Amino acid sequence: MKPSVIPFKPSRKKIDILDQTRLPGKTHWVECKTARDVSRSITKMHVRGAPAIGVTAAYGFYLEIYSLLKNGKKITKSTGKDTKQFLDSSRPTAVNLSWATSRMVHEMETFFSENSIMPENLTDNKKIQNQLLTQIWKAAEEIHLDDAARCLAMGSNTADLIMKNVPKEKLNILTHCNTGSLATGGIGTALGAIRVLHERNRINRVYADETRPFNQGARLTAYELIKEKIPATLVVDSMAAYLMQKGMIDAVIVGSDRITRRGDVANKIGTYMLSVAAKAHSIPFYVVAPLSTYDDSIETGKEIPIEKRDEKEVTHIGGKQIAAEIPVLNYSFDVTPYENITSIVTEKGIFEPSGS
Amino acid sequence: MKPSVIPFKPSRKKIDILDQTRLPGKTHWVECKTARDVSRSITKMHVRGAPAIGVTAAYGFYLEIYSLLKNGKKITKSTGKDTKQFLDSSRPTAVNLSWATSRMVHEMETFFSENSIMPENLTDNKKIQNQLLTQIWKAAEEIHLDDAARCLAMGSNTADLIMKNVPKEKLNILTHCNTGSLATGGIGTALGAIRVLHERNRINRVYADETRPFNQGARLTAYELIKEKIPATLVVDSMAAYLMQKGMIDAVIVGSDRITRRGDVANKIGTYMLSVAAKAHSIPFYVVAPLSTYDDSIETGKEIPIEKRDEKEVTHIGGKQIAAEIPVLNYSFDVTPYENITSIVTEKGIFEPSGS
Repeated sequence: MKPSVIPFKPSRKKIDILDQTRLPGKTHWVECKTARDVSRSITKMHVRGAPAIGVTAAYGFYLEIYSLLKNGKKITKSTGKDTKQFLDSSRPTAVNLSWATSRMVHEMETFFSENSIMPENLTDNKKIQNQLLTQIWKAAEEIHLDDAARCLAMGSNTADLIMKNVPKEKLNILTHCNTGSLATGGIGTALGAIRVLHERNRINRVYADETRPFNQGARLTAYELIKEKIPATLVVDSMAAYLMQKGMIDAVIVGSDRITRRGDVANKIGTYMLSVAAKAHSIPFYVVAPLSTYDDSIETGKEIPIEKRDEKEVTHIGGKQIAAEIPVLNYSFDVTPYENITSIVTEKGIFEPSGS
Repeated sequence: MKPSVIPFKPSRKKIDILDQTRLPGKTHWVECKTARDVSRSITKMHVRGAPAIGVTAAYGFYLEIYSLLKNGKKITKSTGKDTKQFLDSSRPTAVNLSWATSRMVHEMETFFSENSIMPENLTDNKKIQNQLLTQIWKAAEEIHLDDAARCLAMGSNTADLIMKNVPKEKLNILTHCNTGSLATGGIGTALGAIRVLHERNRINRVYADETRPFNQGARLTAYELIKEKIPATLVVDSMAAYLMQKGMIDAVIVGSDRITRRGDVANKIGTYMLSVAAKAHSIPFYVVAPLSTYDDSIETGKEIPIEKRDEKEVTHIGGKQIAAEIPVLNYSFDVTPYENITSIVTEKGIFEPSGS
């Protein structure tokens, strides 16, 4: 199952990254040939979504080594770690990024030790160079494929669960923010599950929340749904409860940025509001996220630090001021307590949060 | 109690109308000297809000007669009704508009019959002309003052009720859309109540919902609150429930466009979502509206036709496309059932909807 929209096109010589900041207006690919190029694309948010960033960084690592060797530059003992450190600094909070680059460093160091070779001696040996490049390319590809496989498993698990729980031939699904192929190395998390339901011919219509203030729903999810030819409608965030009141929503599916031990879920601002409305209308509320989203170090959502972002996200659109001069509170995430969640679906199975 | 922001400045020779479509960026006054000028301003939504439109139309009626007489034009038996018909056509659905112009026609016809004068004979008699103009000017002013008085009564009743029900010295209030002095001939309905609470030194902070898709909260309510020096914060609509979860909201106050016999309330899209969230957090939810908002012809909210508006309200801002090419559902209003409403406050007193 291949998504119609992908966030990057990797090859052995470069990676083309789709500039998501210009979507949906322009489909502009940014050509990246070095770690510096890739880092700039991550910083500028051409590519976003923790899993997608991790995969991009892995390819960025490979490309840096490829470019150094191709240009006859010396590789030293510290090149791997330096490249990792440089890439990691482009989005310091993205856990997947650091995880992916660590794996790449490990791969390179393993190559040197297994072949009993000093990095400095690589410059004159084309054959060994190619062996190294093939090995780290395969590692980056594996990170990519693993992520795609996890998306498929999550999508399939979620679709199975919803088809079991919601006795309806064709479903109307509400989703929030962007959790699709643009945010991952595969079909997505929540939006991946919607893709699987659509493939099984079980979708009547998807309602995509606009997702203020950054409009990921209106810009990115809407874009993916249309490209995927899934029947879809865009609504403003505050309309969700009214659609539920009118019986137009069968289930809500969202992603997550962090999940606590007892099953409280941090996700894009507005998710909690949706969960309250879903509960009031007895509509099932599903969270789809990889196991790596679990933070076993904390028990409740109160311990999750919630990022406040720039006021301009609310008061400006495309550089144009759309609000009066007034203080703004711009929490970027909120916390949905486990009681409001029907199930959390991961690549390994289903978790019914009970708070215990 | 005078609001710091007013939607128009009437005088015996003209009315200056604040162009609300250019707020908050520009404070531009449109000078209107005839019914045609006033009608254009209503059509172009320089002035909006049913009560404000009614008052504007009354002054427009006066100005039309003033301008005809000043320019030596003939007044005929049909001039009043023609002027009314012309003004009414600028916003056919606004009940207050037609009500206000009917009252102006009645005032003029009463003048002619009480003074036993034929309209056609007015041209040559400056003294009678001035008497007529003074009488209809006073009628327009009375419509204006009546509206202002209704706002004060609603505000005072609401403030009394909240101070009785919410045992807290300083309150955090959430409101939605614009229901202030820009929408009425006085201090407003829901926002009027907030003004009264502020005057009584009982406001800690007002949270103004952005109110997608037309952003009346971000553009107009935020503007009024800042001008009024009321501590205020702008939030996106979907953040409301999260603020409630964090204990940051003591009461929700909103206006209404139509109220049914049993107390179901039609109001700006998003109002229902707020009522669901307020109920889930046991936060009181108040509707403030003049008695004229009641539609005694219907029992339940299901009978209220809900207007769907242009998709571009959602997909465009200031002419710029901000969403992917996707179908949009743009209900402009929703219905909050009586069970979710703590009290409906009018200029005459408090109504506790019980559904009976």
